[in-house]
Amino acid sequence: MIDEPLRIGVLASGRGSNLQAVLDATARPGFPARVALVVSDRERAQALERAARAGVPARFISPKDFGDREAYDAAVSAALDTAGVELVCLAGYMRIVGVAFVRRWSGRLMNIHPSLLPAFPGLHPQRQALDHGVKVAGATVHFVDEGVDTGPIILQASVPVLDADTEESLSERILVEEHRLYPEAIRLFAERRLRVSGRRVILEARG
Amino acid sequence: MIDEPLRIGVLASGRGSNLQAVLDATARPGFPARVALVVSDRERAQALERAARAGVPARFISPKDFGDREAYDAAVSAALDTAGVELVCLAGYMRIVGVAFVRRWSGRLMNIHPSLLPAFPGLHPQRQALDHGVKVAGATVHFVDEGVDTGPIILQASVPVLDADTEESLSERILVEEHRLYPEAIRLFAERRLRVSGRRVILEARG
Repeated sequence: MIDEPLRIGVLASGRGSNLQAVLDATARPGFPARVALVVSDRERAQALERAARAGVPARFISPKDFGDREAYDAAVSAALDTAGVELVCLAGYMRIVGVAFVRRWSGRLMNIHPSLLPAFPGLHPQRQALDHGVKVAGATVHFVDEGVDTGPIILQASVPVLDADTEESLSERILVEEHRLYPEAIRLFAERRLRVSGRRVILEARG
Repeated sequence: MIDEPLRIGVLASGRGSNLQAVLDATARPGFPARVALVVSDRERAQALERAARAGVPARFISPKDFGDREAYDAAVSAALDTAGVELVCLAGYMRIVGVAFVRRWSGRLMNIHPSLLPAFPGLHPQRQALDHGVKVAGATVHFVDEGVDTGPIILQASVPVLDADTEESLSERILVEEHRLYPEAIRLFAERRLRVSGRRVILEARG
């Protein structure tokens, strides 16, 4: 019996470069997951175009159509359910997801953040890193919990910070690692090799 | 004219493995600094034996001989002055240095910390890192300011955290980087190549 690929949903608001890395990886033969739905909260998000170009279902769900965050999140959850999504990946999603959404998808909700968490959570982590004067920066894929960028860490990768770096040049260097890490984390999840133990995510040997 | 090597003082309380790395590096021909004095606040510190073995002046200064931290710190400063010390390096020094000492040696006082600061300042950073579940850890050499492990960062290096790591195995992996970083930071300081700009330490090109 051949396992069906894991169905993933990607929530994206912007340029969608991490979405593109996930689309590219999941399109490769034998990859154990595929993108079943892309949802964006912004009508003009480049992410929606990328999904269309990859032949993946994509929906713009407008926050204006809902009274509050909870109602909006519920609509997103409903769309993900309808698409049979088993894992939700935030990829440049600029809305804070509510507690109900986090609980609904607990253990099946990932985010990628361009810092070596727990350093520099929240907005503009690359700028925070430069302002703080660190010499090593990086990227983190983590499960989402109810805090801001506080959930159990799945994968991290480091990059050097150079004296001449701007926010743009550092962001680009980190992005290379993001594009490698996110598909890898999704693959490990799809292969059921991630076991969460307290705050730690343990990588199980291949079955 | 040949520059005299920079005279450094090392404050150490314990095993002295970073002191040893500094002693080894500074003993190499052409290294632009040498250890002029080792001070310990513990009579039985292995650091004192290491200094003796390297033929470097070493002094135990007993905290019991002084009424408070300020008086103790002043005695340490006096010993460093007498030895003509131009740069002070904390290396496993278990006492918190007071504000007066920090100000007295401002810009000429370094510490090494076994984490990628600003993550995991304070005690037991390796254990903190394991408990938090990070996948990348590391070491930081920084100038000391009035906070705990908050000063401008000179050098950092990262190491992977493995699922099987204990506090000991992770500490050992980080220590390899510490032994490389501290002599390198001292060399750069001695060559006057470190320029502090706000929180950032800029590496100047070789003159």
